Amino acid sequence: MVHMSWNDGRIAIIQEALREHGLDAIVCALPANVLMLSGYWPVVGTAIAVATSDGKTSVLAPQDEVELARRGYAQHVATFHAGSLERISTAAQAAEQPLAAMLGSLDLLTARIGFESGEWLEPSPYASLHLYCDAIPSVLKRIAPRANPTNADAMLRELRAVASPDEINRIRASCSIAAQAYQQGAAALRGGATESQAAAHFRTHLYVTAPPVIDCGRADGFVFCMSGPNAATAHGAYARSRGRALAPGDLVLVHCNSYVDGYWTDITRTFCIGSPNPQQHRMYSAIFAARDAALAMIRPGARAADIDRAARDVLSQHGFGDAFKHSTGHGVGFAAIDHNAMPRLHPKSPDVLREGMVFNVEPGIYLEDQGMRHCEMVAVTHDGCERLTPFQADIASLSLLG
Amino acid sequence: MVHMSWNDGRIAIIQEALREHGLDAIVCALPANVLMLSGYWPVVGTAIAVATSDGKTSVLAPQDEVELARRGYAQHVATFHAGSLERISTAAQAAEQPLAAMLGSLDLLTARIGFESGEWLEPSPYASLHLYCDAIPSVLKRIAPRANPTNADAMLRELRAVASPDEINRIRASCSIAAQAYQQGAAALRGGATESQAAAHFRTHLYVTAPPVIDCGRADGFVFCMSGPNAATAHGAYARSRGRALAPGDLVLVHCNSYVDGYWTDITRTFCIGSPNPQQHRMYSAIFAARDAALAMIRPGARAADIDRAARDVLSQHGFGDAFKHSTGHGVGFAAIDHNAMPRLHPKSPDVLREGMVFNVEPGIYLEDQGMRHCEMVAVTHDGCERLTPFQADIASLSLLG
Repeated sequence: MVHMSWNDGRIAIIQEALREHGLDAIVCALPANVLMLSGYWPVVGTAIAVATSDGKTSVLAPQDEVELARRGYAQHVATFHAGSLERISTAAQAAEQPLAAMLGSLDLLTARIGFESGEWLEPSPYASLHLYCDAIPSVLKRIAPRANPTNADAMLRELRAVASPDEINRIRASCSIAAQAYQQGAAALRGGATESQAAAHFRTHLYVTAPPVIDCGRADGFVFCMSGPNAATAHGAYARSRGRALAPGDLVLVHCNSYVDGYWTDITRTFCIGSPNPQQHRMYSAIFAARDAALAMIRPGARAADIDRAARDVLSQHGFGDAFKHSTGHGVGFAAIDHNAMPRLHPKSPDVLREGMVFNVEPGIYLEDQGMRHCEMVAVTHDGCERLTPFQADIASLSLLG
Repeated sequence: MVHMSWNDGRIAIIQEALREHGLDAIVCALPANVLMLSGYWPVVGTAIAVATSDGKTSVLAPQDEVELARRGYAQHVATFHAGSLERISTAAQAAEQPLAAMLGSLDLLTARIGFESGEWLEPSPYASLHLYCDAIPSVLKRIAPRANPTNADAMLRELRAVASPDEINRIRASCSIAAQAYQQGAAALRGGATESQAAAHFRTHLYVTAPPVIDCGRADGFVFCMSGPNAATAHGAYARSRGRALAPGDLVLVHCNSYVDGYWTDITRTFCIGSPNPQQHRMYSAIFAARDAALAMIRPGARAADIDRAARDVLSQHGFGDAFKHSTGHGVGFAAIDHNAMPRLHPKSPDVLREGMVFNVEPGIYLEDQGMRHCEMVAVTHDGCERLTPFQADIASLSLLG
């Protein structure tokens, strides 16, 4: 079973990383890592992907996800039954022998094998997420006692930071579906609706009207609406819709994390119900100037910290320096909300931009009684950047005159 | 800061479990475990809860979740900053010193401390889930090198299996919001809509119309619609809506996992677009007879395997034995879709029912070209069971003649 319709580029990158880190193979189970290794985004989280330094990609998928696994680019897809009526077993117990057979056939039983170990901020692929955690190294110890398992978190983070051209295509498609949701959601946004109702208008389009941009099996997402004083707290690590009713004159921050087949977006727009008043106008002007300053600096070789400083300096010049409470951006695509996903556009970041990096640029102003953030996604090109979310990008299109 | 407005019962149960397992304390970070220990359901997954054998419950919450943490029943809530502009750090790095201080003040630096280790199927509280995995035992080793950390997964699974009266109240409220979503969703269900559109009708009500049954901060969920031949595959570990249009005569399986403040539901109804034909009528009759046989046996002391057999025997008597491809139920509440959550209503289950257990009863019939499942949630009472989802429970209410 050979499927090489896409992502040869990714396989070469993985091979190179394995060699650099002195590994013969990597074994992953976190869904975004399985996606990155094989083009298949597991649903429940029980699948395991194995990639080797000689360019072989194999997946061990639960039987009921095999159709999804085969749409990725792993050369070999094996299956296991995560549950049965004959016995009660955990996924690790059910996968142990099939994984042993896979590692044996790949000649990895005495190899240097990387695995996931510590902290991850993993996008949610389903209502629940299966976690192996310590069960993977435990299984490796049993089935390959002479192998040399190694914490490969750092290598995986680097691999997730740069998308291949095929992966950027998929992230672009995911952004374009979110763009439609924003266009249709904004058209229904008006005073009187609660934040939850407003969020619902946007969110439904993420999975109901997802067009056949790509072979999109799964599309869904999260949309949160924070209005008036609630938006003043939107600098936290999470967003939240409440029962507050939108009122004329409000700033209405709409935050979205959506996906198509595992490629995530991180987008925010702030609408104004009616014409912005002078203070709101100053906020918009500052936000867009900060965004433009950041975008202008993006190219391979640019320092992520410099881009953060560019946006921060503009907001300071406009009098909003203290109101910009978080970093200017972080990696997106395999990640959704992870501020530690590379590249980190943070004052203390050591990261340097490379072609193929996908991240967000999210200047924000959080005052006492209202807040604003504009979060765009970009991809680093060979000489600059591509804006992946070029919609509702100015004051006119964000002012809802009703 | 003392908040004892609810869940004294839970604290006593935790103390007893810790003593039984020879532990002085338990340290948890998976959101459902933090909820079970403290009544607070973390959003992003960086919070840490500590419960001791002398009945003290403490929470270390990220600053932007402190309001949520204080609405739980931990006697002590400390905070940490998971991110800052001064330095780039992971949550484990940021939490290490505050956790050391907390363990020190609780006199736990040389204690026997349980922690989460291996496999979990964790409900998704947000767009992404932060995972500490190996970082928690690593931190414990550094900050309390003389402590004795112990894998406490088995104890935690037992603790999650029995809900306190206050927790059952919350699960009941979560079910009642889902009931409203089903009533309103069914009213909009008709031929011509796609599965995704149909699912949207149900889902929106989970977070938009969540009534103030309890002090419900966060309500949301997942709804999937599988119709006609798509429902024939609904026995897998996950559900999925597609673009298929519903047609007259279809069986339409609507599956829901929803939550209020971390207390999850697992519910399925199968509607018929029009009057059921004779075969569909036989399916409904068999399903409801299987459900009733199972419900009639539920009481403290009953064996979970016997309840599975009761449902399975009825379906066999109706000629659908081979078409019932999964177990009859599993624990729900702290879990959503976890087939290994106790009690496991499985042919090989060793579990015995206890008062306070909350689980689902989900007989299903999966044929070549269509499928049906009816999944109810129940709580074990002192002498029987309470049905938590007593709606759309017969053929008449599931036949959509409009």
